[in-house]
Amino acid sequence: VFDEKERKQAVRDGKRLTRGLNAGPGAASGRAVFSPSKAEAMSKSGAVVLVRTETSPEDIKGMQASVGILTARGGMTSHAALVARQMGKVCVAGAGELEIDHKKARMRVSGVTVKEGDWISIDGTTGEVFVGRLSTQDSEVARSLTPGKRKRKTTPAIVEAYDKLLTWADEVRTLRVRTNADQPEQCRTAVALGAEGVGLCRTEHMFFGESKIEAMREMILADGPEAREAALARLLPLQRKDFEGIFKEMGDLPVTIRTLDPPLHEFLPHGDEEIRVLARELGVKPADIRAKVEQLTELNPMLGHRGCRLGITYPEITRMQARAIFEAACRVAKKSGVRPQPEIMIPLIASREELSLQAEIVRDVAEEVFRKAKMRVPYLLGTMIELPRAALVAGEIAEEAEFFSFGTNDLTQTTYGISRDDAGKFIPVYVDREIFRADPFGTLDKRGVGRLVEIAAMDGRATRPDLKLGICGEHGGDPESIDFFHRIGLRYVSCSPYRVPIARLAAAQAALRAAL
Amino acid sequence: VFDEKERKQAVRDGKRLTRGLNAGPGAASGRAVFSPSKAEAMSKSGAVVLVRTETSPEDIKGMQASVGILTARGGMTSHAALVARQMGKVCVAGAGELEIDHKKARMRVSGVTVKEGDWISIDGTTGEVFVGRLSTQDSEVARSLTPGKRKRKTTPAIVEAYDKLLTWADEVRTLRVRTNADQPEQCRTAVALGAEGVGLCRTEHMFFGESKIEAMREMILADGPEAREAALARLLPLQRKDFEGIFKEMGDLPVTIRTLDPPLHEFLPHGDEEIRVLARELGVKPADIRAKVEQLTELNPMLGHRGCRLGITYPEITRMQARAIFEAACRVAKKSGVRPQPEIMIPLIASREELSLQAEIVRDVAEEVFRKAKMRVPYLLGTMIELPRAALVAGEIAEEAEFFSFGTNDLTQTTYGISRDDAGKFIPVYVDREIFRADPFGTLDKRGVGRLVEIAAMDGRATRPDLKLGICGEHGGDPESIDFFHRIGLRYVSCSPYRVPIARLAAAQAALRAAL
Repeated sequence: VFDEKERKQAVRDGKRLTRGLNAGPGAASGRAVFSPSKAEAMSKSGAVVLVRTETSPEDIKGMQASVGILTARGGMTSHAALVARQMGKVCVAGAGELEIDHKKARMRVSGVTVKEGDWISIDGTTGEVFVGRLSTQDSEVARSLTPGKRKRKTTPAIVEAYDKLLTWADEVRTLRVRTNADQPEQCRTAVALGAEGVGLCRTEHMFFGESKIEAMREMILADGPEAREAALARLLPLQRKDFEGIFKEMGDLPVTIRTLDPPLHEFLPHGDEEIRVLARELGVKPADIRAKVEQLTELNPMLGHRGCRLGITYPEITRMQARAIFEAACRVAKKSGVRPQPEIMIPLIASREELSLQAEIVRDVAEEVFRKAKMRVPYLLGTMIELPRAALVAGEIAEEAEFFSFGTNDLTQTTYGISRDDAGKFIPVYVDREIFRADPFGTLDKRGVGRLVEIAAMDGRATRPDLKLGICGEHGGDPESIDFFHRIGLRYVSCSPYRVPIARLAAAQAALRAAL
Repeated sequence: VFDEKERKQAVRDGKRLTRGLNAGPGAASGRAVFSPSKAEAMSKSGAVVLVRTETSPEDIKGMQASVGILTARGGMTSHAALVARQMGKVCVAGAGELEIDHKKARMRVSGVTVKEGDWISIDGTTGEVFVGRLSTQDSEVARSLTPGKRKRKTTPAIVEAYDKLLTWADEVRTLRVRTNADQPEQCRTAVALGAEGVGLCRTEHMFFGESKIEAMREMILADGPEAREAALARLLPLQRKDFEGIFKEMGDLPVTIRTLDPPLHEFLPHGDEEIRVLARELGVKPADIRAKVEQLTELNPMLGHRGCRLGITYPEITRMQARAIFEAACRVAKKSGVRPQPEIMIPLIASREELSLQAEIVRDVAEEVFRKAKMRVPYLLGTMIELPRAALVAGEIAEEAEFFSFGTNDLTQTTYGISRDDAGKFIPVYVDREIFRADPFGTLDKRGVGRLVEIAAMDGRATRPDLKLGICGEHGGDPESIDFFHRIGLRYVSCSPYRVPIARLAAAQAALRAAL
C-alpha cells in the first residue's frame, strides 16, 4: 500500500489523475514508459511503470521488467489484468480517461501531460493513478505471512491477534475456503494464508509463458488436425510440468483445473512487427498469419468461440490437457507419496450435451493413463455454471457433473448483459445516480444473479444429492456475498491468495449469523 | 424463390458454394461486385449482387443499387442484415467460408474463385450461395397480397383458398399478430397480410437514411451537451416525419416504438476515405473523428454502451425521441382523425431503476407536448425483456412497466452466452453433432430461455395483473415457438411482414391444440 499520509497529500495537491479498475492488488511507483522495449531498457536504472492502451502476449518481457502496469482499455479479465495478477504485478486496467500517444511516448489525462521518464504511482487495490512518486510499504501481517518476507524473529502483537482471530474463525465456519491459483508459488502463498485447496486453476495462464506461447501459436496456426496434434505434443510435457508443480505444492488438497477457456486469437500477435517476427520463427508468410488473425477475429469474443466450444471443435486440445493432468497426478503420487485430487472443470457449458461430449474425452484419457501407469488417481469431473442457461437447466447438467463451480464473474456479465471490459463508459454514471446499489462485479447481485445460483443449486441437488457446490468468481472474496453463499449451502468459496484470510473470517461471521 | 428444378440441378452440379445466415428473405441472381461504387456503376447494365466482408453506412448507395447482398461476417442483426431487410433486399450474411479479396475484386470459396462480373445467386430464405444464374419467381399468393403486385383481375383458386384458410384461422386464434416494421411501406404490406399493429419499430433504422445519418453523426461527434442538443434539434423534424408516416399508415392500431438501441459507433464511418469525407463536411480534423471512433470502440459491443444505457448517459436523446413520437401522434390525430396508439418501449433494461429514469423523461415530455397541442394521446410505457436479469426481477420492473415485450433474439444470446454474429465458427459443428436439437435462434429454447420467459410473465402479472405481454423477437414468426407463447398466455406475437400469415395460422393451431 502507499503511505497513507503521502497519499492524502497527493489527493489534496490534485495529483490523483484518474481511476481505473483495480486489476492487480498492491501499490507501485516508477517512471512511466510507453513501450515494452523501453521498459526493459529503463528498468535497469530504476523502477518503471508500463503504460499501454492494452497489452498482448508480445508485451510479456516488458511487463516482467516493470513494477506496475497501467492500461487505458480492457477489464478485470483483460490480458494485462490476467498476466499482472499471475506475475504478482500491480495493475490498474481500463483507465478510459487516459489519452495515450505511443508514438510520442506520452499521455494526457485531467489536463496533465505525462512524458516518458516522469514518475507515476498506481494503486492496484483502489484503481487510483497519481502523477509523482509515493512511498509504498507492506503491512506487518502481510510480511509475516508471505513466505520469504518474514523479516523479524519475534512475532508482533498484531500478528498474534490475527492468528488467534483466524483460529476462532476456523472453529466456527462450515464453508471451506480455496484459492484461485495457477502457479506453484501462488499455491504456496495461499496455503500459508489458510487455503484448503485450489478452486480455480486457469490453464490458459500457463500458456503465456515465453517457451509455451510459441508452441501454443504453432498449434493455433496449424493447418489441419495433424499439424495441430504435433504442436500439442510439444505442449504436453510443458503443461504436465505445470501441473506437477501444483500437485506437489497442494499435496492431498483438491485442485480444480479448468480446461482451456479464452478465444484463440488472444494468443496471437496483432502488431505488424510482431507478426513478422513470428512468421520468421515459424517459417511461414506474414500474410498467412494476418489472414488467420483476421479469420479468428470476433465481434463479441466474450460470447464467441471459447470455453467448451473450443474443446468441442478441437477435441484434441481437451485430450492433451486431460493427459497432462492425469500423467502429472500419477507421477506426483508415485514420487512424493501424496494423493493428488484433481477436479476437472469444463467451462462455458450451456447444455448437458456439451458436457457429455467433453466428459467422454476426459474419462477415456484417464483410463488410458491409469492403465499405462498401473495406478489410479481419484478425480471428479464437473462444470462451471457461468451462463444463465446452465443455471436454468442445471437439473439436466447434474446428470453428468459431479460438481458445480459457480463462475459468478461471467454469470454476472451475461445475466446483466454487461461486458466488464466495456462498462467503463456508463458504470460511473450508474454508480453516481445509484442505479446499482453496489457494483454487481464486487458484491453478488442476490435478486438477479443470486436467483440463478439458487435455482441451479436446488435443481442440481434434486438430481444428484451429493453434488459438490462451490464458487470461483471474485465474489468468493467478498464478505456480503460469502454470507449469501453460506445461506444457500455451498460447500466452498475460492478467491485470490491474499483474500483467503478475509474469506475465512467472513465464512465464520456467516455461520454465526445463521445460528442466531 | 428460385425455380426449384434449376435449384436442384445446381446442387447436383456442385454449384452450391456455401451457406450463410438467411438474413433477408427472397432469392436473387446477379453479377458479383465487391465495392459499392462498382455496384452503382454496373447496376446500370443489369442486376448485381454486392459482396462485402461486412457493410457499413457508407455502403448504402451501393446496397440500394444491388438486388442482393452477401457478407462474410456479421449476423442477423448486423448492419447488412438490418439495412437489407429494411430495403426489402435479399441478403445472406455471415457466410464465414468466403475468402474475399476486395483489392483484387474476387472471392474464393469451396475451391471456386468468383471474379467481378461472374454470376452468383443467393437465397435469403435458406442462406444458400450458388455460383451461376438461377431463375427467380414470386409465388401467386405473394403477388396477390403485396400492394402494387396484384396483376390479374380475377382471383386465382389458390388465393381464394388462402383467404378462406386465414379467415378460419382468425376466427379461432386468441393470440394477436403484429409486425416488426419501421417504414410506412412495410406497415402497409404487413396490414395487407393481416397485421394488427406494429410490435417493434426500431428507430435506429430510420437514422441510416442519407440525410439523417449526417445529423446523427454530428450528434455523436458533438463536443458537449450544447452541440449535441443542436444536432438533436436537426434530427427532431426528420424523426417526427418518420413517425407521422407510420401513424398514418397504422391508423387506430397500436405501434410499439423502441428508443435508440445500438452502440453509437455503428453510425460512424471507419474507412480512411470515408472519415476524410465526413471531416470535410463537418469542418473538423480527420484525426478528431478517428479519435472519437477509437474512443467508442468496444471489445464486446453486444454487452456494451447501448440500449437504455445510452438514454441514461445521454438523456437528451430519449427526450428528442419522445418529443418526435408525441408531436407526430398529435399531428396525425388532428389531421387524419385517427387515434394513434403509441407504445413506447425502453430497450436493454436490467433493473427497475433504469426504467424509472427513462420513464420519467418520456412522461415529462408527453405532458409538455400535450399541453402545447391542447390534446392528449393515449400511450403506454413499457420495456423489452431481453436480458436474463430483467426476467429474474420482472416483478419489480412491472411496477414501472405497463407492458413487456420479450426480445427473444437478445435474450437467447445472453442466456446461452452466444453472439449470433460470431456463432458461425462453432454452430455448424453443434448442429452436426446434434448438441442443439434445433437452432435456438430459429425455434425458442423452451427449457432455458423459455423458463426465463415464464418466470417473467408470472412475476410480472403478480405485480400488475393487466400487464400486456408480447414478443417481438424473430421467434414470433416460428410456429413451434408460437405454440409455446400461446400456452403461457402472451397477448401477441410480432414478426416481419411476410411471416404475418404464418403467425396467424400457427396461432390458430396453437388455440386448437390447447382446446383438445
